[in-house]
Amino acid sequence: MPASPIRKLTPFADKAKLDGKKVYHLNIGQPDIETPEGMINAIKGIDFKVWAYTPSEGTLSYRKKLVSYYNRAGYNINTENIIVTTGGSEAINIALMTCLDPGDEIIIPEPFYANYNGFACQADAVVKPILSYIDNGFALPPISEFEKLITPKTRGIMICSPNNPTGYLYSKEEMEALKDLILKHDLYLFADEAYREFCYDGREFTSPMHLDGIDDNVIILDTVSKRYSACGARLGCIITKNKEVWATALKFAQARLSAGMVEQIAGEAAIDTPDSYFEAVTKEYTHRRDVLVNALNKIDGVYCPNPGGAFYVCARLPIDDSDKFCQWMLESFTYNNATVMFAPATGFYSTPGAGINEVRMAYVINPDDLNAAMKCLEEGLKVYPGRVEVENGKQKEAHA
Amino acid sequence: MPASPIRKLTPFADKAKLDGKKVYHLNIGQPDIETPEGMINAIKGIDFKVWAYTPSEGTLSYRKKLVSYYNRAGYNINTENIIVTTGGSEAINIALMTCLDPGDEIIIPEPFYANYNGFACQADAVVKPILSYIDNGFALPPISEFEKLITPKTRGIMICSPNNPTGYLYSKEEMEALKDLILKHDLYLFADEAYREFCYDGREFTSPMHLDGIDDNVIILDTVSKRYSACGARLGCIITKNKEVWATALKFAQARLSAGMVEQIAGEAAIDTPDSYFEAVTKEYTHRRDVLVNALNKIDGVYCPNPGGAFYVCARLPIDDSDKFCQWMLESFTYNNATVMFAPATGFYSTPGAGINEVRMAYVINPDDLNAAMKCLEEGLKVYPGRVEVENGKQKEAHA
Ligand SMILES: Cc1ncc(COP(=O)(O)O)c(C=O)c1O
Ligand SMILES: Cc1ncc(COP(=O)(O)O)c(C=O)c1O
Repeated sequence: MPASPIRKLTPFADKAKLDGKKVYHLNIGQPDIETPEGMINAIKGIDFKVWAYTPSEGTLSYRKKLVSYYNRAGYNINTENIIVTTGGSEAINIALMTCLDPGDEIIIPEPFYANYNGFACQADAVVKPILSYIDNGFALPPISEFEKLITPKTRGIMICSPNNPTGYLYSKEEMEALKDLILKHDLYLFADEAYREFCYDGREFTSPMHLDGIDDNVIILDTVSKRYSACGARLGCIITKNKEVWATALKFAQARLSAGMVEQIAGEAAIDTPDSYFEAVTKEYTHRRDVLVNALNKIDGVYCPNPGGAFYVCARLPIDDSDKFCQWMLESFTYNNATVMFAPATGFYSTPGAGINEVRMAYVINPDDLNAAMKCLEEGLKVYPGRVEVENGKQKEAHA
Repeated sequence: MPASPIRKLTPFADKAKLDGKKVYHLNIGQPDIETPEGMINAIKGIDFKVWAYTPSEGTLSYRKKLVSYYNRAGYNINTENIIVTTGGSEAINIALMTCLDPGDEIIIPEPFYANYNGFACQADAVVKPILSYIDNGFALPPISEFEKLITPKTRGIMICSPNNPTGYLYSKEEMEALKDLILKHDLYLFADEAYREFCYDGREFTSPMHLDGIDDNVIILDTVSKRYSACGARLGCIITKNKEVWATALKFAQARLSAGMVEQIAGEAAIDTPDSYFEAVTKEYTHRRDVLVNALNKIDGVYCPNPGGAFYVCARLPIDDSDKFCQWMLESFTYNNATVMFAPATGFYSTPGAGINEVRMAYVINPDDLNAAMKCLEEGLKVYPGRVEVENGKQKEAHA
């Protein structure tokens, strides 16, 4: 077991040095958006005497509701394609254990959600990262680059679109290219759709479930955490039309008995969340993204693409080392009695040195605070001892 | 991944053949006892706008409450000794992954809770079963038998007291003997205390936490599932005073982000459950056990020890094969338009052939139904085609 990636995403700060300082938390993916009322009311309205186990694959009534949700999105599934899990985390964990034997390889475009490493490690599988680049907004790497990594031990490719940490949303064309690759080598395509509902500027979300001819290859990993701002519910699911994968995944689900009962009741209510909720949320996140990306690109030496989804951006800063910088901001810098906490992007890359001058920001705070945080960053960068000038995306010279 | 043990515990029955027949479910550990009102009210009374992640180790306020619960029981722990988990299942899973490397061995007296196999398998660890016997009530096997199994790869011993599936409660003396063994070979002692509160006839529960000098070796695995009849809460914890184990377990906990938020709120309320609740529950289970054990021992050819805790018994029946018998009872036998569902004990043994004439029963139904189920069993045994006469615990001859 390698050192936890999560520790890295939350830079350690000496509590004493933070005392009295306001900290803008852009480092974590915990939305401030309110959970839909219907979900909260479902919890308050529970009506049972015995808080009992539910079936290992999830209650039938919740799975039926999920089917209606996914089929509205064009997935064409039934209740026998779903296993309800304890968060997207468990969905990833079970899916990898189901499909990968010890030593098997999985290709993941990086930067990627750091906990994939932990789950691959639990499955004794090997992650083969493939670099995507900030200069084209972290688009899908060329298929030829994937081909180079494929070996007889390659079992699958993991994608996350819209992406954490980059916010990048794969286009229909990129998904089609992935499909051809998947079919050519008969691989699994693991698609983490935690951020499915967060697509901006009228962009359309393409799931592998929308593509023909790869039903047996696709495993969707999903969660209510971000969709309904219900991270504490620990409710997710695995979706696959591959019956063998489903049956094996069920064995892992049976070993841990069941997912939460109250959560499945709340999850059922969540499916009835009115469209107006998502419209409001999408509008809010789009606005925040615009505020954040505009502010970032106005800062001298900073570059940030304008991503199509999720609620994260990865920005390039004129710095020597994002870990050092994030820690310095927290412990040694104050502007207007405040500072900002970022996640060093290095935590999302496996390739040594990659992401060294990038940080991830989650726009999960209100626009006024975002602007204040960006002002704070701007001032911090002016005096950061490890500032490095950047020109055409290349570091120019060390400063100080 | 071996075939799921859970499937085995729930014999498959042709639905059509069950139609209209009443089935007494003695096969599963889902109590019918009501969840304490305080827990239910805590759920109904939740008061938050954002259903957020909690710390990976559990909320501080829940861990504080847990400390008060465990210290009332004499554990002498603090909040830094606890990691809150998604059920006892996750506690077992994380503990094994934390302490065992691939190929490491763990000794477990059998029969044992079948899912230990699944979790050991996920940790790539090897279970070394050690037989305990119905004729002495499934007491701790002689320490000399453990010694025979210990190799350089042995990392720990897993116990469950009071036990599922036998109901056996280890005495203080047995626990002391285990302690000496643990210290002699510097092993981990994993203690699954899911049934801690269920001790009968004034017997006292001894936890490894009550023993001196093995703080660094002990890992307690606990759950609210049975204690508060709250199986659907998926709330448990790992307790250890070994700081290194705690820190590594936390990394696994961080990878899956957090346990449920509503559950921790309910778990906090659960700690305030009045003693009268447990007194009533203990009285009820004691009564049921007495009804069940008496009825069983009155049936010709049946033997059942009178266990000190939990809500299970393992009984020996005059049968050729418990899997066949359980299936036959379900599909081919009816008495008063009813039948009984048991768990074949073979599912709880790893040693081939062990438990072949034993079944596990959970006394999670009311005494009238228990009596009716026993009458049904008695009649079933009279006509079961695979009946085998038993004398002094040995099978005499095959019948028919
Ligand atoms: C891409 C991605 N997948 C999965 C998860 C896991 O979420 P959860 O376990 O809360 O469902 C997260 C959480 O941040 C995530 O960002
Ligand atoms: C001995 C034992 N340990 C652990 C568990 C797991 O319980 P849970 O995951 O519901 O806490 C059970 C459930 O039946 C059990 O019998």
